[in-house]
Amino acid sequence: MSIEMKILKSIVISFLIITSFIYGQDESRYDKYKGIAEEIVKTALLEKKGYNYLEQLCKIGPRLSGSENSLKAIYWAKDKMEKLGFDSVWLQPVMVPYWVRGEVEKVIISKSKYFINRKLAVTALGGSAGTDKKGITAQLIEVGSFKELKNLGDKVKGKIVFINHQFSDGNIDPFRSYGETAGERITGPLECSKYGAVAAIIRSLTADYDNVPHTGVTGKADSIKQIPSVAIGLKDADFLSEALIKDPQLKVNIKLSCKNKSDAQSFNVIGEIKGAEKPNDIIVVGAHIDSWDVACGAHDDGAGCMQVLECLDLLKRMGIKPERTIRCVLYINEENGSRGAREYEKFAEASHEKHIAAIESDRGAFTPRGFYVDSDSLTLEKIKSWLPLLEKSGIDWIKKGGSGADVSYINNCLAKLGYASDSQKYFNYHHSANDTIDAVNPREMELGSAAITIMTLLLSNEL
Amino acid sequence: MSIEMKILKSIVISFLIITSFIYGQDESRYDKYKGIAEEIVKTALLEKKGYNYLEQLCKIGPRLSGSENSLKAIYWAKDKMEKLGFDSVWLQPVMVPYWVRGEVEKVIISKSKYFINRKLAVTALGGSAGTDKKGITAQLIEVGSFKELKNLGDKVKGKIVFINHQFSDGNIDPFRSYGETAGERITGPLECSKYGAVAAIIRSLTADYDNVPHTGVTGKADSIKQIPSVAIGLKDADFLSEALIKDPQLKVNIKLSCKNKSDAQSFNVIGEIKGAEKPNDIIVVGAHIDSWDVACGAHDDGAGCMQVLECLDLLKRMGIKPERTIRCVLYINEENGSRGAREYEKFAEASHEKHIAAIESDRGAFTPRGFYVDSDSLTLEKIKSWLPLLEKSGIDWIKKGGSGADVSYINNCLAKLGYASDSQKYFNYHHSANDTIDAVNPREMELGSAAITIMTLLLSNEL
Repeated sequence: MSIEMKILKSIVISFLIITSFIYGQDESRYDKYKGIAEEIVKTALLEKKGYNYLEQLCKIGPRLSGSENSLKAIYWAKDKMEKLGFDSVWLQPVMVPYWVRGEVEKVIISKSKYFINRKLAVTALGGSAGTDKKGITAQLIEVGSFKELKNLGDKVKGKIVFINHQFSDGNIDPFRSYGETAGERITGPLECSKYGAVAAIIRSLTADYDNVPHTGVTGKADSIKQIPSVAIGLKDADFLSEALIKDPQLKVNIKLSCKNKSDAQSFNVIGEIKGAEKPNDIIVVGAHIDSWDVACGAHDDGAGCMQVLECLDLLKRMGIKPERTIRCVLYINEENGSRGAREYEKFAEASHEKHIAAIESDRGAFTPRGFYVDSDSLTLEKIKSWLPLLEKSGIDWIKKGGSGADVSYINNCLAKLGYASDSQKYFNYHHSANDTIDAVNPREMELGSAAITIMTLLLSNEL
Repeated sequence: MSIEMKILKSIVISFLIITSFIYGQDESRYDKYKGIAEEIVKTALLEKKGYNYLEQLCKIGPRLSGSENSLKAIYWAKDKMEKLGFDSVWLQPVMVPYWVRGEVEKVIISKSKYFINRKLAVTALGGSAGTDKKGITAQLIEVGSFKELKNLGDKVKGKIVFINHQFSDGNIDPFRSYGETAGERITGPLECSKYGAVAAIIRSLTADYDNVPHTGVTGKADSIKQIPSVAIGLKDADFLSEALIKDPQLKVNIKLSCKNKSDAQSFNVIGEIKGAEKPNDIIVVGAHIDSWDVACGAHDDGAGCMQVLECLDLLKRMGIKPERTIRCVLYINEENGSRGAREYEKFAEASHEKHIAAIESDRGAFTPRGFYVDSDSLTLEKIKSWLPLLEKSGIDWIKKGGSGADVSYINNCLAKLGYASDSQKYFNYHHSANDTIDAVNPREMELGSAAITIMTLLLSNEL
């Protein structure tokens, strides 16, 4: 079937479903939800409780898996759910990787005709190996891509590789630019190590032209030696590239005190409101409670956590009793291992419950745009037919697409959804010291909470 | 016809038009535009010329009608259009009202049991009368609305009226909240004057809780005496309201040096690219070059001006030759008189040209959401059928609605459109000292330029 024919078919199906929902026997049902949706939006905007919870969460600080702070946040979230009167609240134990940055991360141009001891703005990549106290000093070699690295092959031996792949500012969707470059952060240092490089410097994955470095996970492999690896701010990436042209012999010294420690005890935080009619049918609303350690992770993913928590809170405060059980899962360890997601899926598989649908919020708390749906096409068309209700919260579209890193682990589930807020500025903040509470606009975040709440209610009662 | 039936009919019509555009003889036409649209988006995002022009414009400073600065901006814009090589560039003379703020605007609680000489954060409303050097001192009386004012009637005589109508944070569309309250800024002081009040203080029209006052035009009427009137910041509005409860006898002193001067000479700035096939058919892309005098009006409407200017610039740079003439009109005096819009309409009426369509950008330069279209329903459905092309620039919808304060003056025009960017934060900046260049995100603004350019090209060649 051509793409055009597929579009045509999907338009016809959605047209039929929309009209049957609005014009058929269900008109009164539509009207009922219309009023509820408007009330949910108004309550979220006027009371702004989710934003207030986010302020509290952000005061705890960064929440990297395994850290003391992450446990503080976990206990805080459990306590919050209990105080809000959720029907059940529990911690699900899970062992997580524990990487610590330590005090030292310093990269300088140590030998050059022009730039002696010039410090560079860097941050170690999560999972990176450290160095000894003297650090690693070596000649620098720049590559623009994996392909260039392969072409160089053994020529990088003994050197520090600088992967200077620009995050494109030309894509309308910055997540696409992220997709084009994230591979080099995740597997780049390992590839460099394969060819004998001693360390790696990666251009930060953002198009926002400041000098704040953006961290993120870098990979491990049993058969390959991990090398020290850092992300560098954009201005210093360009400076370093020009410096190399002026002096191709320049040497860089990298000192990192980071290390990978033994796995640590941690937890997913789970709270739920029991379904009034089908308590064993589960709708999961999920986000991840861990963050990188360079800021409090306000957008990534503190706000997502507080949106899905506020979803249950809104339903409860407004006296709405969903037919199915609504379960808020705050996953640990999305950033560097997905252990929380895997642990929850084990539990879901073993349980007698039936997982019907799941929504994840992990794309920032900017103004609402849409929902991506991972489901069969009939379910997709049904969910699409609810768009007029979701529009009350600023949602413009519902379309096929991936859900999210955590809920995608759930098998045997009719529909997995990803809430999508406007993505234009997301990578200005992502994994950097910029991701603080002032980067989140209260109205925009609350509209997201409202959108998730309306969608959750419909998944509970109408899917 | 019920609303549901109207929706149904409109869905069917738009469905038929979309499919005929995509599947009929015009498939290759659609494909042609698809490539052009993608190229326009990419060029705008990568080159960011419009944002660069905005930086230049903002350096000139505020551009209130009649001011020296507004003339500087007008000559700068004319010069820019000429340097960019537009086919014709000219200034259209128009006399504009000229109001000056002067140096003094000071409001204090001058007499009270608790708050002696407490200064309040205010800004005179545009068009307000001034005071003498001693100012006006009088007792304060608070009203929450016009209705309350009417109920009080002559009781406000000799007093200063404080209209403390909250801008609602509960509407999903802040323009709706503005619509609910703007009347009180525009006609409130006149209403107060009718009942004998000596001055008016208006709560600023924003929900953003800081203490920055937001100005804006207040009305005039030949038969009613103008009284001094100011907007007050939200924190001080709440403070003043509480102060009044504690001490209902408190007095306020208002000193304003503002005044209305004689009309001044000004101009609309007009530049165009001649249509390759129908040069007498005109597509207007318009915005207003005047701003309030408290900041450079980056969102309102500097960015709109640079988006419509960039529209022509993009077409030219990319070698796209539109069939109809594309005319950029930078209107003067949208904020306090619409003289520019009326003057342009006189010219359009008298001209031998045919105005086909017009787009206005005057709703901020945030991330793109949609286009409002003011046209007959067949034209609306045709324009709606282009949505798949507009989506390339982040546009989610095209729907019936008002165009904008300036282009709405054009009569005898098939379609008038208003470009709509995300409105959630617009009134945080609107008419206040906050509306500066750093409030505009380059990517978001450029996506708007791209959306306007794609729409302009389609209006030129396909309407």
